[in-house]
Amino acid sequence: MKLHWSPRSPFVRKVMIAAHELGLEKRLTLLRTVVAMSKPNEALLSDNPIGKIPTLVLDDGAAIYDSLTICEYFDALAGDGRLFPAARPERWSALTRHALANGLLDVLILWRNERDKPQARQTPEWIAGFALKTRAALERFEQLAPRLGDTPFDIGHIGIGCALSYLDFRFADLNWRAGHPSLTAWYQSFCERPSAKATEIVDG
Amino acid sequence: MKLHWSPRSPFVRKVMIAAHELGLEKRLTLLRTVVAMSKPNEALLSDNPIGKIPTLVLDDGAAIYDSLTICEYFDALAGDGRLFPAARPERWSALTRHALANGLLDVLILWRNERDKPQARQTPEWIAGFALKTRAALERFEQLAPRLGDTPFDIGHIGIGCALSYLDFRFADLNWRAGHPSLTAWYQSFCERPSAKATEIVDG
Repeated sequence: MKLHWSPRSPFVRKVMIAAHELGLEKRLTLLRTVVAMSKPNEALLSDNPIGKIPTLVLDDGAAIYDSLTICEYFDALAGDGRLFPAARPERWSALTRHALANGLLDVLILWRNERDKPQARQTPEWIAGFALKTRAALERFEQLAPRLGDTPFDIGHIGIGCALSYLDFRFADLNWRAGHPSLTAWYQSFCERPSAKATEIVDG
Repeated sequence: MKLHWSPRSPFVRKVMIAAHELGLEKRLTLLRTVVAMSKPNEALLSDNPIGKIPTLVLDDGAAIYDSLTICEYFDALAGDGRLFPAARPERWSALTRHALANGLLDVLILWRNERDKPQARQTPEWIAGFALKTRAALERFEQLAPRLGDTPFDIGHIGIGCALSYLDFRFADLNWRAGHPSLTAWYQSFCERPSAKATEIVDG
């Protein structure tokens, strides 16, 4: 299987963590694929018209995306529902935690795009909204954190870990750990997993 | 169940179509909820810290989101996998078609936000990228269209129908039907479904 990949994308990291958790990482051929909102990658568009990474291409040429779908595909291939619990309400809990974390990542990507523009072209109300949503998401994660360790590691945990590591990577100045002691402790345990160590986000 | 809802949101429309397909619409109490990138809805943030609609709130107060998770929840409640096929590869096909349609909707929302700004604050490269991705997505849908009717109506069909109706609603000037005869024919059949008729996007 080929994976359109980048060492800097938190969405790519989610599927790489899933692959490592499930022992699938050696079956992936990684294709370094660069994308940016101001510069779509035309080669990628033939596999994924929306031009997002990760995009998985199977040996028969069929493409699978987005990151959530790829993670569920991996889980079906080798995890038998380990990362995507079949039981309810565990499934809705896992998918909603994932959606919150993924929504936070979407906010952070937009925030970074906005922040990196010349100031005269920035929209301050957007930036204020991104900051408010980020604070609200961190508050919710802090509420959830004391019980995050009670359930088996799932797609929701992967999402939260990838969102927090992206905060460290691109928004270190926010100092997200301040006021979030339970979340800080949980994140430490996330970082110690072999799958997290093998997939750290780096510039390059 | 309470649903944070708006008659203008294509993401809300997805879950409303799912509810109508599954006969669940009468069990929903709709809460008119207004969101905008420049003005987060603080009341919504307590149910969904990322401030997106739709957000479903169960009778016990638990919140379920995003739109894909809500659709799957409805399907588990009343559809027994009708909208989310359990069989593979049908499941990956449905989820990838949905991801393409949903990714197109994300692009269109960003495009609209950008287009509605004073011109001096617009980023022309972004708008060019949004246009390119929209063309690529439509081209892929056109390739898929002749066979879209071969499989039972699923979450992927819902996504494509909602993306096309949003193009009509906010991007009529793009005239998406031009050059896409198969997609136009398929969309006509989508529009004739009772679930689509009951959920048309309107300003208001």
